[in-house]
Amino acid sequence: MKAVVYLLLWLTACQVRGMYIPREMNRTLQNLRQHYKISDEELFNGKPVFSREPLKGKVESKMLFMGGVLETYEKLIEHMLSELATPSPTITENQKPSSSVTASDEAAGDIRSKLTYILERVRELKRHHYQEQMKVLHGLQNLKHIKMESRVVQSKALSELRWFFEEASTLADTVMRKRRRRQARVKLHNRG
Amino acid sequence: MKAVVYLLLWLTACQVRGMYIPREMNRTLQNLRQHYKISDEELFNGKPVFSREPLKGKVESKMLFMGGVLETYEKLIEHMLSELATPSPTITENQKPSSSVTASDEAAGDIRSKLTYILERVRELKRHHYQEQMKVLHGLQNLKHIKMESRVVQSKALSELRWFFEEASTLADTVMRKRRRRQARVKLHNRG
Repeated sequence: MKAVVYLLLWLTACQVRGMYIPREMNRTLQNLRQHYKISDEELFNGKPVFSREPLKGKVESKMLFMGGVLETYEKLIEHMLSELATPSPTITENQKPSSSVTASDEAAGDIRSKLTYILERVRELKRHHYQEQMKVLHGLQNLKHIKMESRVVQSKALSELRWFFEEASTLADTVMRKRRRRQARVKLHNRG
Repeated sequence: MKAVVYLLLWLTACQVRGMYIPREMNRTLQNLRQHYKISDEELFNGKPVFSREPLKGKVESKMLFMGGVLETYEKLIEHMLSELATPSPTITENQKPSSSVTASDEAAGDIRSKLTYILERVRELKRHHYQEQMKVLHGLQNLKHIKMESRVVQSKALSELRWFFEEASTLADTVMRKRRRRQARVKLHNRG
């Protein structure tokens, strides 16, 4: 009886864990992984593409990082699609095209539609749930384009620092006070 | 009497607003702005260096953007310091050095110590209150270095997408449920 309960709990956990991935997406990913196959040594070398380290903070921070991950996936899949559109870089102009052009064209078409499907799912998730995060991410990206060698930028930035320093300190202080209040409440609750 | 109360309130507000900026920092910034002077047309052209738009979201998002602003200020001031260390680009090798080298060297030394002081205040604020944000920001920066043309990266990313898609959906769902609960509480409170 106990074993059956554990099995049911485990099955429920599996279902909950996979509840957000449409079956077709799962299947498509599996098919794509067959096409983009690498050796097991390369796959399991303990160096993931996306770190999970920044997902240890608060929900808002996690969502911001996740917004960045989704945006990177979007760019990566777009890049993979662009590779399918152009001839393989291993074939030079002087080389004759392979005899199986039609077959490989068909295969490329299949991969293209599968990648497009995955790209759409990623974009959908981003569009529906990560719009707020995108605003902050684009704000952060714009910071990279500030022309540090410009005298006008340097002068203006010095003028703006007073406001930003004040705001950054106020924010940090607000968060610290909130944290202290929460800790005090927890202590009181534990005593009571 | 009313006027006195308003005056007192206004003075308190000014004090609260400027409570995090040390007086010396304020003075130093004013001095530096005299050195990095630009015309009023340039200063007030309505195009600030740092947008305040991303500071309209939740506290955590605000702090993340602020972390990015502080980091940009750090790089900008480091760049300004490096400009002081090398000779002015307007003096070519064939040109004779100006007769006031000693005076301008002294002035550069003064500006250098002022910039270093400001840099230290920015670093201090970042170090004491923005460490959590820095982790997420560096996580986001690392996403920019992903080698999209590598087959190994493409294959691994496809393998990792299932987990990240699931996690990103779970996070979005958690936040949405919390928001709905909060709205329901507010409605109930307003009715009662």
